[in-house]
Amino acid sequence: MCRDSCKKLSLELNVASEAIERLVAGLNRFPGVGPKSARRIALDMLTWETDTVRVLAELMIDVKTRVHRCSICFNLTEVEPCSVCTDTRRDRSQLMVLDFIGDLLAVDRTGLYRGLYHVLDGRISPLDGIGPEDLNIQQLLGRVRQGEIKEVILANGPTVEGDATAQYLSQCLVPFEISVTQIARGLPVGSDLALADQVTLSRALEGRREY
Amino acid sequence: MCRDSCKKLSLELNVASEAIERLVAGLNRFPGVGPKSARRIALDMLTWETDTVRVLAELMIDVKTRVHRCSICFNLTEVEPCSVCTDTRRDRSQLMVLDFIGDLLAVDRTGLYRGLYHVLDGRISPLDGIGPEDLNIQQLLGRVRQGEIKEVILANGPTVEGDATAQYLSQCLVPFEISVTQIARGLPVGSDLALADQVTLSRALEGRREY
Repeated sequence: MCRDSCKKLSLELNVASEAIERLVAGLNRFPGVGPKSARRIALDMLTWETDTVRVLAELMIDVKTRVHRCSICFNLTEVEPCSVCTDTRRDRSQLMVLDFIGDLLAVDRTGLYRGLYHVLDGRISPLDGIGPEDLNIQQLLGRVRQGEIKEVILANGPTVEGDATAQYLSQCLVPFEISVTQIARGLPVGSDLALADQVTLSRALEGRREY
Repeated sequence: MCRDSCKKLSLELNVASEAIERLVAGLNRFPGVGPKSARRIALDMLTWETDTVRVLAELMIDVKTRVHRCSICFNLTEVEPCSVCTDTRRDRSQLMVLDFIGDLLAVDRTGLYRGLYHVLDGRISPLDGIGPEDLNIQQLLGRVRQGEIKEVILANGPTVEGDATAQYLSQCLVPFEISVTQIARGLPVGSDLALADQVTLSRALEGRREY
């Protein structure tokens, strides 16, 4: 067994360049990129112009150096506080709470929301050992305490953990006597009613509105 | 329409960092990585240690600077000629012909082949305007002409184009009076006979051997 794998290893090192193997291992760290995709990317990259590779490498370092978390809303930003928090054209009475930065970017891409944001950086999940104290909830309450916010929109993910987080937040927000809303759960547009799961269907029914 | 998309764009620039958007566009160039995966990778990378990002960036540049094509077999290599071509422990009477570098790496990872390689860099495909003159065929014939090679193993991909390439090569090799073989076509191990396509089944039948 050992001799076999040793032979294999020495052969592999023989053929594949060490630099490529190291790059493949590095690319393998990307989420959703397995060893085969990583190799495909590495081989593809060898056909790129050297300058293109150099630019991408610089962009990666650039992002790490320039992009930070906003100290107010935990958005990603190059300035402190972020441009959303300082934008006077935005509605400063509305605050949307989200689980992750990716959610914020997705909501903002729609261009339909013009209020402020707050990223929790996670969801309450006792099974994973994540409690309220691990999320940016104190910072959220601090912002609400300042009195300018009239509505908190809970946009936590439509999962058990997201619901638990929304539930917890709604209780924390009771003392402030502000409006607390949650984005609608229902059938995604373009989906097939016959294929919808029971929970989604029951939420869609619960959330029905006058036509 | 235009005002809408302009508003959307300015909002997007407001929120997302420009550095991130540029990185996402760069990662989007990877094969098999769409805009959503690219964004996911970029956001994930922001949680990495700065040093890890720096190392990956350097590996990318490193690969482009250090790795070249071997002038003999067109393998990827950091030395010229590559370590396979100069390895005296390898069987220099066997030469395996492959379409792409990825194929070479896959064969070599098995550790079962100990001869030499030759990468064609493509397959004959008249529909895509790729003729024999676009592949490294003259270089292959030059190597065979030197007289050391006793067997050429055709390992072209099991597609119409791969077959056309193998067919063309076998004709080119007739004058040399050496053995020309092709790797077996048949049922992949672990697959389901009932689900195999007709062509694979007919090839498996043709290639049957004494049990």
